[in-house]
Amino acid sequence: MNFTIHKKDLSRALSLIQSISGRKTTLPILTHALLEVRNRFLYLTGTDLEIGIREEVPAVVQEEGKASVSAKKIYEIIRELPEEEIHIEKKENHWITIQCGKSVFNLAGLDPEEFPVLPTHEEQYFTKLATRILLEMIEKTAYAASTEESRYHLNGVLFTIQKGKTMAGLRMVATDGHRLSLIDREGQPIRGMEKGIIIPKKGVVEIKKVMAEKNQEEWVEIYFDPTHGFLKIGTSLMVIRLIDGEFPEYEQVIPKGNDKKMTLDKEKVYGCLRRVSTMATERGEGVKFSIRSHVAEFASCHQDFGDAREELDMSYEGPSLEIGFNSRYLMEALHVIDTEEVTIELRDEGSPGIIKPVSLKEVCDQLCIVMPMRI
Amino acid sequence: MNFTIHKKDLSRALSLIQSISGRKTTLPILTHALLEVRNRFLYLTGTDLEIGIREEVPAVVQEEGKASVSAKKIYEIIRELPEEEIHIEKKENHWITIQCGKSVFNLAGLDPEEFPVLPTHEEQYFTKLATRILLEMIEKTAYAASTEESRYHLNGVLFTIQKGKTMAGLRMVATDGHRLSLIDREGQPIRGMEKGIIIPKKGVVEIKKVMAEKNQEEWVEIYFDPTHGFLKIGTSLMVIRLIDGEFPEYEQVIPKGNDKKMTLDKEKVYGCLRRVSTMATERGEGVKFSIRSHVAEFASCHQDFGDAREELDMSYEGPSLEIGFNSRYLMEALHVIDTEEVTIELRDEGSPGIIKPVSLKEVCDQLCIVMPMRI
Repeated sequence: MNFTIHKKDLSRALSLIQSISGRKTTLPILTHALLEVRNRFLYLTGTDLEIGIREEVPAVVQEEGKASVSAKKIYEIIRELPEEEIHIEKKENHWITIQCGKSVFNLAGLDPEEFPVLPTHEEQYFTKLATRILLEMIEKTAYAASTEESRYHLNGVLFTIQKGKTMAGLRMVATDGHRLSLIDREGQPIRGMEKGIIIPKKGVVEIKKVMAEKNQEEWVEIYFDPTHGFLKIGTSLMVIRLIDGEFPEYEQVIPKGNDKKMTLDKEKVYGCLRRVSTMATERGEGVKFSIRSHVAEFASCHQDFGDAREELDMSYEGPSLEIGFNSRYLMEALHVIDTEEVTIELRDEGSPGIIKPVSLKEVCDQLCIVMPMRI
Repeated sequence: MNFTIHKKDLSRALSLIQSISGRKTTLPILTHALLEVRNRFLYLTGTDLEIGIREEVPAVVQEEGKASVSAKKIYEIIRELPEEEIHIEKKENHWITIQCGKSVFNLAGLDPEEFPVLPTHEEQYFTKLATRILLEMIEKTAYAASTEESRYHLNGVLFTIQKGKTMAGLRMVATDGHRLSLIDREGQPIRGMEKGIIIPKKGVVEIKKVMAEKNQEEWVEIYFDPTHGFLKIGTSLMVIRLIDGEFPEYEQVIPKGNDKKMTLDKEKVYGCLRRVSTMATERGEGVKFSIRSHVAEFASCHQDFGDAREELDMSYEGPSLEIGFNSRYLMEALHVIDTEEVTIELRDEGSPGIIKPVSLKEVCDQLCIVMPMRI
């Protein structure tokens, strides 16, 4: 293995690889990046066995071959090099030598044959999906996924088809049992997601990161097999192991009889929550939401520091209600709604609330559900 | 106590107060801010008994008085309020009520008479010192002060007078026993610092923060008494308890016989150290510096990952030498030198090295000393 490569290209590719390569692992090879040089490219691979990523970087190849070195260490080195040509060559005992200007690095390696092989993909299965749509769907749901290890099947986002639609309607849903976020967007049918698949939260975070890095790419290519998701984003190939579990029957959770409906200015509610939540207790972050004719009020109470309340005008005319919510859950729901106004739909103090964007669209294509809490 | 105040003014003042108020303390009153309203001002005070700060904020006063509330909590609340007038009033049992727009906060307090009194200052003792000079002296020395609790007398910077000068020459020195940084600048004689005083590191950090916040202030006013330093920066008054200990005889540490002198491009040496130190071991961060005629070389070796080396051209013509240094200490020394070129002066592998700016000034007014280490 013997090749020359631009610092900038290599540094960008390694930054993505090293963020996936395992750090605390008992298998040293998983902390490594695999370097494969063939044709006119360097292929870099990193994996923690749950997520794998392969980057293709153009190189001037003198001799093909493979090597495996610490992903973190080679990234640290390359990042510090000047914006010049870098020459990399394989030596004895799996070592490699990196040369750039007057710098010389000898880096210890492992046998590249030990590096785990990524699950193989089939080129013809890929479907195009607009990058901005996938990004929006992830950003507006993933925050609600659980991070509790005991709730393994909730540690990801459900990616599925909207029921009863003739056109291809994509849906993404995430929940941690306390709140739920759902978004519908149009897109072409994607192979393997008919019954719905669960992408782990860590996987969608990495997809977002790669999409952000390759922000000039208008499309991603994507498909799923029963165990893995495959994505191509520019010169990146990502392979993500899916969560093998049953996602809860989320449609049963969406409340139907929320008859107390009010429309509020999103920024005003958000600002009000930020202020009132300063007096919420650190653990529950609970605020009391009271409605009566034309007035909404948020209030909180902290046993050490005191209390807070703030009123908002609104056009609602109906029965009064007091209901408790986790203020952070409300704020995170408002944060993923883009419209100026939001609709809040309530039923009674023991039933979940719904927060939706107010738009001219006929069908509601986004909603957040937040469970109530006792204050 | 009953007054109206601008959100922006109060928020800025509280941000400085709350950064000093104790957090982990067994004395609850030290986590508080003291509010004193008299004449046409609100005086805010925070202290952890080592550093005290008092801010003066213009207010529309309906009734004078005092209150004491959690500094962190009142800052959290005020920060979230809109840019409007805020009304604050004292209630029973030391509570205060904060009103702004449609927000109302009731905040629990303690008896303001329990709040510790800051050491008193004498207006006539203050001397003016240019803010940019004090800032520069702090920035170029404080990094070298020790943070080890067992080295109490090194946990600060020495502020003293240059010896043997007729004009008022100010000197600041800091050391942690492994490296030392010294800077000389001109200034008027400051009361109380004839014999040299030690300002704790935490104190200089806070002085820097207040100077940055009041960046339109051209001058600070300053003096010392045997136990405290007093500073006025705009509307801030700072009181800092000095370290009661003997600063080491730093002049004896400055090596005299360093005959191997070389001039190098600062940025080139810095970049070279950044690259080579990627292969230094995490603990010692040691690099080997080798000089021979016309060539300087930095090299490092890591038992797990491999090794690195890089050469730099230079005009030095003299005996060869190999010496080990902590790479971070060298980089931090270079970082506080503003000139394009630096002089490195060495003697032998067991003696400390000196790093100085290269300037047209007759007298050297800044130097860094770094102890060698065995590699």
